[in-house]
Amino acid sequence: MSEEEKVLAANQRFYLALEAMDLEGMDAVWLHEDWVACLHPGWELLLGWEFIRDSWQRIFENTRRMKVAVSEITVRVEGSSAWVNCVEQVTSSFETGFSTAWVQATNLFVKRGEGWLLVHHHASPLPRGDEDETVQ
Amino acid sequence: MSEEEKVLAANQRFYLALEAMDLEGMDAVWLHEDWVACLHPGWELLLGWEFIRDSWQRIFENTRRMKVAVSEITVRVEGSSAWVNCVEQVTSSFETGFSTAWVQATNLFVKRGEGWLLVHHHASPLPRGDEDETVQ
Repeated sequence: MSEEEKVLAANQRFYLALEAMDLEGMDAVWLHEDWVACLHPGWELLLGWEFIRDSWQRIFENTRRMKVAVSEITVRVEGSSAWVNCVEQVTSSFETGFSTAWVQATNLFVKRGEGWLLVHHHASPLPRGDEDETVQ
Repeated sequence: MSEEEKVLAANQRFYLALEAMDLEGMDAVWLHEDWVACLHPGWELLLGWEFIRDSWQRIFENTRRMKVAVSEITVRVEGSSAWVNCVEQVTSSFETGFSTAWVQATNLFVKRGEGWLLVHHHASPLPRGDEDETVQ
């Protein structure tokens, strides 16, 4: 397995954890340091694993079901760092309805031992047809 | 000068080129490869230096003056890669008026020789008071 393939596998585990709303999956995917960073679409930047984990917990608690389709994936490995660009189509169901959003993501990983761990997730809304469409 | 300081200096050169709308400054700051990436707020992802350079040229041609204040800067160096988180407050003047926007940026650099070059710029709108304020 090449390093690129390992990074893409780590990226896929992140989206599996997201779609399954699996907090323990998130625990396994992220590096637990106070300098890791996460920007959810429309939020302020979160710095540090503690705050990032708390944000996923709150998102999962407030969502009934989540469907994530990932496309337009590129990967670049540079030594012990690697980053993935991809487009997420996220459909979320809530108590009150559902929403679909197109999101451009930058996911940055670092190598620790033989594994690649997520250290930076920057997600921002894309200007595509059905973004922010909400049906109630 | 530590590697962190060198990366922060490279980050500052990027914003000086942006504020001066200096395309040659952009040439000097970016790595010229077909895998470098740039996401302007509200755009689709641009892949490859040729398209990225063209986008800066178009932005500079369509802007009369640009003022950029950079704050909330963090930096992380990991071998020959490094990334900066920062907030940009961008005020742009056009023929028809001006706009102010708050933007969260991820800037990713790689080390080539003794220099750090920009390979990834992800900028997305922040939900702050005067974003998208336009006076005409």
